[in-house]
Amino acid sequence: MSPLPAFPIGDLPVMWLRDNCPCTQCRDPRSGQKLFQIGSLPDGLRVAAVAAVDSAGAPAVEVTWDPDGHRSTYPQAWLEAHRPGGPEHRDRRTEAGKELWAARDLTGRMPTADWDEYLAEPALRARMLESVLRLGFMVLRGVPEREGQVLDVAETFGYVRETNYGKLFDVRVEPDPNNLAFTSVAITPHTDNPYRDPVPTLQLLHCLVNDADGGDSGLVDGFAAAALLRREDPEAFEVLTRTPVPFVFRDAGAELRADRPLIDTDPLGRVREVRFNNRSIGTLRLPADALEAFYAAYRTFAELLERSELRLDLRLVPGDCLVFDNTRLLHARTAFAKDGARHLQGCYADLDGLASTLAVLRRADTLEPLAQLFAGAGTTEYLGEPVSMAQHMLQAGARAEAAGAPPHLVAAALLHDVGHVEDDVVTGRELMSGNDNRHSHTGADALGRWFGPEVTEPVRLHVAAKRYLCAVEPGYHDRLSEASKYTLAVQGGVMTPAQADRFAALAGAADAVAVRRWDDEAKDPDAVTPPFEHFLPLLTALLRG
Amino acid sequence: MSPLPAFPIGDLPVMWLRDNCPCTQCRDPRSGQKLFQIGSLPDGLRVAAVAAVDSAGAPAVEVTWDPDGHRSTYPQAWLEAHRPGGPEHRDRRTEAGKELWAARDLTGRMPTADWDEYLAEPALRARMLESVLRLGFMVLRGVPEREGQVLDVAETFGYVRETNYGKLFDVRVEPDPNNLAFTSVAITPHTDNPYRDPVPTLQLLHCLVNDADGGDSGLVDGFAAAALLRREDPEAFEVLTRTPVPFVFRDAGAELRADRPLIDTDPLGRVREVRFNNRSIGTLRLPADALEAFYAAYRTFAELLERSELRLDLRLVPGDCLVFDNTRLLHARTAFAKDGARHLQGCYADLDGLASTLAVLRRADTLEPLAQLFAGAGTTEYLGEPVSMAQHMLQAGARAEAAGAPPHLVAAALLHDVGHVEDDVVTGRELMSGNDNRHSHTGADALGRWFGPEVTEPVRLHVAAKRYLCAVEPGYHDRLSEASKYTLAVQGGVMTPAQADRFAALAGAADAVAVRRWDDEAKDPDAVTPPFEHFLPLLTALLRG
Repeated sequence: MSPLPAFPIGDLPVMWLRDNCPCTQCRDPRSGQKLFQIGSLPDGLRVAAVAAVDSAGAPAVEVTWDPDGHRSTYPQAWLEAHRPGGPEHRDRRTEAGKELWAARDLTGRMPTADWDEYLAEPALRARMLESVLRLGFMVLRGVPEREGQVLDVAETFGYVRETNYGKLFDVRVEPDPNNLAFTSVAITPHTDNPYRDPVPTLQLLHCLVNDADGGDSGLVDGFAAAALLRREDPEAFEVLTRTPVPFVFRDAGAELRADRPLIDTDPLGRVREVRFNNRSIGTLRLPADALEAFYAAYRTFAELLERSELRLDLRLVPGDCLVFDNTRLLHARTAFAKDGARHLQGCYADLDGLASTLAVLRRADTLEPLAQLFAGAGTTEYLGEPVSMAQHMLQAGARAEAAGAPPHLVAAALLHDVGHVEDDVVTGRELMSGNDNRHSHTGADALGRWFGPEVTEPVRLHVAAKRYLCAVEPGYHDRLSEASKYTLAVQGGVMTPAQADRFAALAGAADAVAVRRWDDEAKDPDAVTPPFEHFLPLLTALLRG
Repeated sequence: MSPLPAFPIGDLPVMWLRDNCPCTQCRDPRSGQKLFQIGSLPDGLRVAAVAAVDSAGAPAVEVTWDPDGHRSTYPQAWLEAHRPGGPEHRDRRTEAGKELWAARDLTGRMPTADWDEYLAEPALRARMLESVLRLGFMVLRGVPEREGQVLDVAETFGYVRETNYGKLFDVRVEPDPNNLAFTSVAITPHTDNPYRDPVPTLQLLHCLVNDADGGDSGLVDGFAAAALLRREDPEAFEVLTRTPVPFVFRDAGAELRADRPLIDTDPLGRVREVRFNNRSIGTLRLPADALEAFYAAYRTFAELLERSELRLDLRLVPGDCLVFDNTRLLHARTAFAKDGARHLQGCYADLDGLASTLAVLRRADTLEPLAQLFAGAGTTEYLGEPVSMAQHMLQAGARAEAAGAPPHLVAAALLHDVGHVEDDVVTGRELMSGNDNRHSHTGADALGRWFGPEVTEPVRLHVAAKRYLCAVEPGYHDRLSEASKYTLAVQGGVMTPAQADRFAALAGAADAVAVRRWDDEAKDPDAVTPPFEHFLPLLTALLRG
């Protein structure tokens, strides 16, 4: 029994608390999606009773609800972390989740990486993607100078967004350009495709050739500029957030228009998009005084965006790929000689996919200790069986997967013996020398750091399942390996009929028996198994929220 | 000379007026993009002088600017249409540009079309796409029941948006679903992918099989529901527009989160997105009183969305493809027997591409009279030449195109003789009987309805160019067709040296000579030419804004 939390549960907003009930009636355990309608919760819902309980070994609070009698169990850690009035969520799409910068802030800390290392090292990849979210960009160096390669770069973190310029577009001087980008003139800091809604939220520019005099690139942090405008001229800031501006584009195949403010804020007033493109603003239709106010503010912001201290200059050389947040950073280029060779290839993608890729990469980081275990201590002998501990567990996981088992059981099979190797493999030897190391319990407890009971409980019960099967299934005992037969006695021996009945009545008995069978089968010295990394997506999906 | 407009130009907001200067120094004539920086316009800009002028035959106002002396010519029609204080632009992405509906409003006027007719008839296609913008959806019937066909439907109006569910997703009962969509349970009205930002703005659902008992579809106009909430409970409406809500999704390969209000408004307070998905709302972090206010408003809106009078019920049968605005319409489905066969394929796309396709289709409508001319009167004889008038003009256009001419000259070559067929082909016969029909002038004037001077002036001068070339180019006259030689005299004969000098000094002389040469070459009875429709994209791009 754990103590109740320090704050009274009864004071929490009832609908909010009930909407967050984690039970499997309220949420689909696979997808986490809610299974009830918010409108179908009873009127007059209230907390009838509160009790301190244990939930998978952690202190929790059980709430009984009036009038429907439903029970919800909230881990105390969750209640503490989500207590109303706690720190606000730092929405990463708004200025609250960014590091705003002027050019000199980035001296010596440009977010750059070598392409091959970016591909090879998940941790580096995560740092670079984090830079795109935090600073608004990254530069990858040494990206193969192949046509179309920029699409491969996009696929490392998301999905290409096709537009009227194609999946991929070439930035070079063209004979009959439909866009100034395809000429040699200078282009001041701007948002791309401002006339699209949704605007592409990421842009990639991959340099294939840059022999031109000029043609350098520049980046301006539009969020920093907007914040500066808010400080220096709050009225202009206000006008720009309140005035939808028509952005227009028209050529043979497309006719686009988006009416959006130059500075877009979220409902809490935080900057969340800057859309600035001097070239594409159409004709505003407003009363004369509103037009005057808008143009004054627009000019003030335009001048601010051209301050040299805001502009980070960089020259893309062949092999460089610049990836930037098109809702935040404005990009520019200097003019170049019309006959100078300069060729970039670009494409668009979206921030949501990039943020998702980053979150999934971070889950893999979380599982690093398990990966180490499979690569290190787990590769040594396993209780005198003809396979290593790691081979044994990988086989068990692979067999569960091949049998079409749900992810939590594949995970349980894959990880059922981590209790043997929790520190090193010695605990396994201890078992063989006649002392029960209670590895199913230590394993389940260790796994509780990452996974919920749907994974930990079959692990906890997989030794008991052997004792159970020996009691109820003729022939089962005889099929066990010699080592398994030996440890049976150390682990408590064949269950009595009463013990077997109690075991069979447990909610998790069937899962534990299933894991046990894959365990028993997974001792083939010739079996080819996938590496631990194969299971990472499945494991990461099961990580506790 | 035309009169000045009824309102004083000097009272117009100067920066706004100057920013809209249409001259070729201020705007790229090809792309329409602005060539100056808003910040580089001089401080203290003012109108120094105003004069009434003619611009390509239409009344216009010429403004001379202080202090830089720049001159801008604004057609009076443009000034009248864009006069400040005129009607506000009805942004088609907000409720201002929609027809809000309850189910019964659509009785007898469901936006449905047969797939083959939709493909064959541009006007029908335009009406259907207009329905998606105005009502929020369309249903295409008889779409081939092939896997992957839904992607072809999307490509008729835009680009597929790939997500973590793939380019294409299957909606059917799955053994280990990561989303309730892939089960047989009922799903209440919701937005898809609310945890994406940008959210996919269009969804397509193509029915391949629906033998299940149940599994019917429902649509609710979220904008109409939001407007209803604003009337019935303005405070709840306010709360829902002001509260960012976390929408979350998590599975093996993705971890998505978007913080957006359930009802999003533009800076003028107009509803522009409804994002409602009961299943995917994560844990809100707000002070307790804000949580209570939010949950009360959320429940009120949820209940409102389930009112039967708002819900349009429809059953998708094999071959049906439903296309709807995912930022506005909420979609639902009834439960069905788990073993009932039901299989939809879906994909996402975006509204901006659809609106662009519609705008370009409408341009083609605009050009319908020209298409009729090429199909009708133009197919009859041409001045005794061995080709029809239409063949002659198509040949001229094709030759200009093959020569790599810029679009305005391809258009001028293609349309240079429309003056002969303006009403019917009789004017051509008149010319051959010795009366100059001045077809170059009547043609140029007629084309002025659609095109600017870059197209109309080479047409106007193409007869003069013949008289000019006869004067200055040895051998030119001899190469002319007999008919052309005959009409030369009727049209004024070979230019005198003084006339030729004046002609050569005209700004459009070179373009007119180029068109003339394609004209002279375009009399080959065996030439194979593309149809008029081939030139539609090029022509539509040249249409006056």
